[in-house]
Amino acid sequence: MRSFISLNEALEILNENVDNLDIEEVDLINGLNRVVSENIYAQINNPPFNKSAMDGYAFICNNGELINKRLKIIDKVYAGGVCNNIVSEETAIKIMTGAPIPKGANAVIKQEDVVIEEDYIILRKNINENENICIKGEDILQGSLLLKSNKKLNYADIGILASSGINKIKVYKKPKVAFISTGDEVIDIGFELKEGKIYNSNKYSILSRLGELGYDVKYISHINDDSKEIGNCIEQLSKKVDLIITTGGVSVGEKDLLKEAIDITSGEKLFWKINIKPGSAVLCSKINKSIILSLSGNPTAALTTFELLVKPTLEKLSGYKEIKINREKAILLQDIKKKSPQRRFIRGYVEIDNYRQYVHITQTKSGNGILSSAINSNCIIEIEVNNDGKSKGDLVDIIKL
Amino acid sequence: MRSFISLNEALEILNENVDNLDIEEVDLINGLNRVVSENIYAQINNPPFNKSAMDGYAFICNNGELINKRLKIIDKVYAGGVCNNIVSEETAIKIMTGAPIPKGANAVIKQEDVVIEEDYIILRKNINENENICIKGEDILQGSLLLKSNKKLNYADIGILASSGINKIKVYKKPKVAFISTGDEVIDIGFELKEGKIYNSNKYSILSRLGELGYDVKYISHINDDSKEIGNCIEQLSKKVDLIITTGGVSVGEKDLLKEAIDITSGEKLFWKINIKPGSAVLCSKINKSIILSLSGNPTAALTTFELLVKPTLEKLSGYKEIKINREKAILLQDIKKKSPQRRFIRGYVEIDNYRQYVHITQTKSGNGILSSAINSNCIIEIEVNNDGKSKGDLVDIIKL
Repeated sequence: MRSFISLNEALEILNENVDNLDIEEVDLINGLNRVVSENIYAQINNPPFNKSAMDGYAFICNNGELINKRLKIIDKVYAGGVCNNIVSEETAIKIMTGAPIPKGANAVIKQEDVVIEEDYIILRKNINENENICIKGEDILQGSLLLKSNKKLNYADIGILASSGINKIKVYKKPKVAFISTGDEVIDIGFELKEGKIYNSNKYSILSRLGELGYDVKYISHINDDSKEIGNCIEQLSKKVDLIITTGGVSVGEKDLLKEAIDITSGEKLFWKINIKPGSAVLCSKINKSIILSLSGNPTAALTTFELLVKPTLEKLSGYKEIKINREKAILLQDIKKKSPQRRFIRGYVEIDNYRQYVHITQTKSGNGILSSAINSNCIIEIEVNNDGKSKGDLVDIIKL
Repeated sequence: MRSFISLNEALEILNENVDNLDIEEVDLINGLNRVVSENIYAQINNPPFNKSAMDGYAFICNNGELINKRLKIIDKVYAGGVCNNIVSEETAIKIMTGAPIPKGANAVIKQEDVVIEEDYIILRKNINENENICIKGEDILQGSLLLKSNKKLNYADIGILASSGINKIKVYKKPKVAFISTGDEVIDIGFELKEGKIYNSNKYSILSRLGELGYDVKYISHINDDSKEIGNCIEQLSKKVDLIITTGGVSVGEKDLLKEAIDITSGEKLFWKINIKPGSAVLCSKINKSIILSLSGNPTAALTTFELLVKPTLEKLSGYKEIKINREKAILLQDIKKKSPQRRFIRGYVEIDNYRQYVHITQTKSGNGILSSAINSNCIIEIEVNNDGKSKGDLVDIIKL
């Protein structure tokens, strides 16, 4: 097991130890937020046939003078219908938006550009060949690449696949997740707060964050400070789930139990402690094929390491190619005076003003367990190792939530 | 009914006709993405008691010289425990991170800053009063405002409320939504694509978008071009749901049926057609207390008006104070040559480069039904009424998806 490593080293170890889950086939309607396991190509042309873009009349356009041309209306065709009549030089077929262009016709004149006289139309405008026609395949050609492998599906992707008639897709399985909070001091909401106890906020914030990211939690548990019970629970869960998240029991005190708990399992510890603040106390283990990320019981530390380690791990399990943190740049709106030898993460609020991205700090108090900094925050500001503080106007890295 | 109105007028009409839904009480664990209906204040101090920030020894610190001071260890206290012994000038109590500070003590010295000699510690560092103590209420004071009314709850909010022991919250009811696609030309995926037919992509993209935004759809239906059947269905659903979304049947042709359908209901039409492109063909109606937004059958138009009208309507139903579109600015990465008398919306991809927000157009082909423009897009670029086109480098408004 490696100890006191950098964040990048931790991510590398995770990348080596976490694989994409198996592939399964699902109905398209259940495909939202799933990651496709293969390139997907258009099955059909879109539109699938030449169709009218307007309500009007389909006729043969010779690109000559059309004004005052008189054509006999011989049929009409609605969207969804088919017209068996053929347009000749002297005839036109009434056509609705979305209807297939009748045989022979090569243009559609809008209904407001003709005058109707009994069974005839008189053209009132010159138009060109193919005008007001959506040509078969002009939007998406059959066989063209719609989506690349390892793409997470959003609503627009689902719509594109539906338009091509694709109703089954191959995706990576969804990770099965378990959450265990630990600690004698932790009690659940709804119970009386006795002396020396605190409410279990980690359970609620972490389960909600998993919900925001679209993951389901299969097992939720709280275990008091008993390394044997914690170890047994983790061993059992490791046979059923892909990722186990624990909180608490990873500091250095006498009651820091997660290392002891892992020791009694069949698994191995991958790393212990990373050089960041908050969140340095984190233990990563692997039992069977299951990854265990043991976060601090301190809410701010737990939520920071969740974003840095748990979220990318879940993404790779779900089908992303690699474990990676997405960073952007923003202009800092106030000074950060404190120097730090460690890589630091501070809660912030990022906003676009005009076209520039700015960030301000939402943490107004200093301290490790400062929950209030999460109120109204939408990003984490990252301050690099061995910094001398930061000044208003500096460019900083941010990780959006 | 008002016709051919501006987008702002349409939003004003919606704002007048859409109210927040009723209020209900839910368990906190089910509170994600719900909108609170009242200000929420901290029920307790956080931390709820003075607690140790470190593993170490609690003692009485007089701010004088401490080095070589010798104190007898008389007890120890773990997180979650309570210590009944009182610290005196000559004694110390071993304390773990998160444990309550014993009576009498006013500082904690870290375990690495002492030397242990049998039952005694010898201090090796000068520290100040309150050092390594998290003072009761220093993070969040009892009675302070945690969340403002009408805020949509994210995972951090849920965690903050849990830390205060709040397990029931008052929120606005979730909107009940129905979706009806219409059109003889539309067939569902999984069926053979016959001549003149197209696959129903709107159903899949709109249901998925509702899923992304956290809304449940209670009824899903497809009805062919039969105004009576559509009208009856809408009338029935209007008694059960808060919002009905329809697609198709809102153009001007003979088979444009939604207006006819609404006419046979007990409801009223609020507006018809807005001066935007794509998506001008949209009908808004109200039956009983239910809003009906009838979007174009053209996928690009439907998805644009979804973002402009349906999403803000759902937000107000869910508890937002008003119907509003959120716009940001971005630097355009290519020319848009086409002039337009209408307000236009073009699919784009927005990205931060360094700290600047840039947008490029994902729509490479022109035309109304261009589904492919949605591939890899994450925003809609808005071009104002009566523009002369736009140039690379211009600032444009964008609406993020």
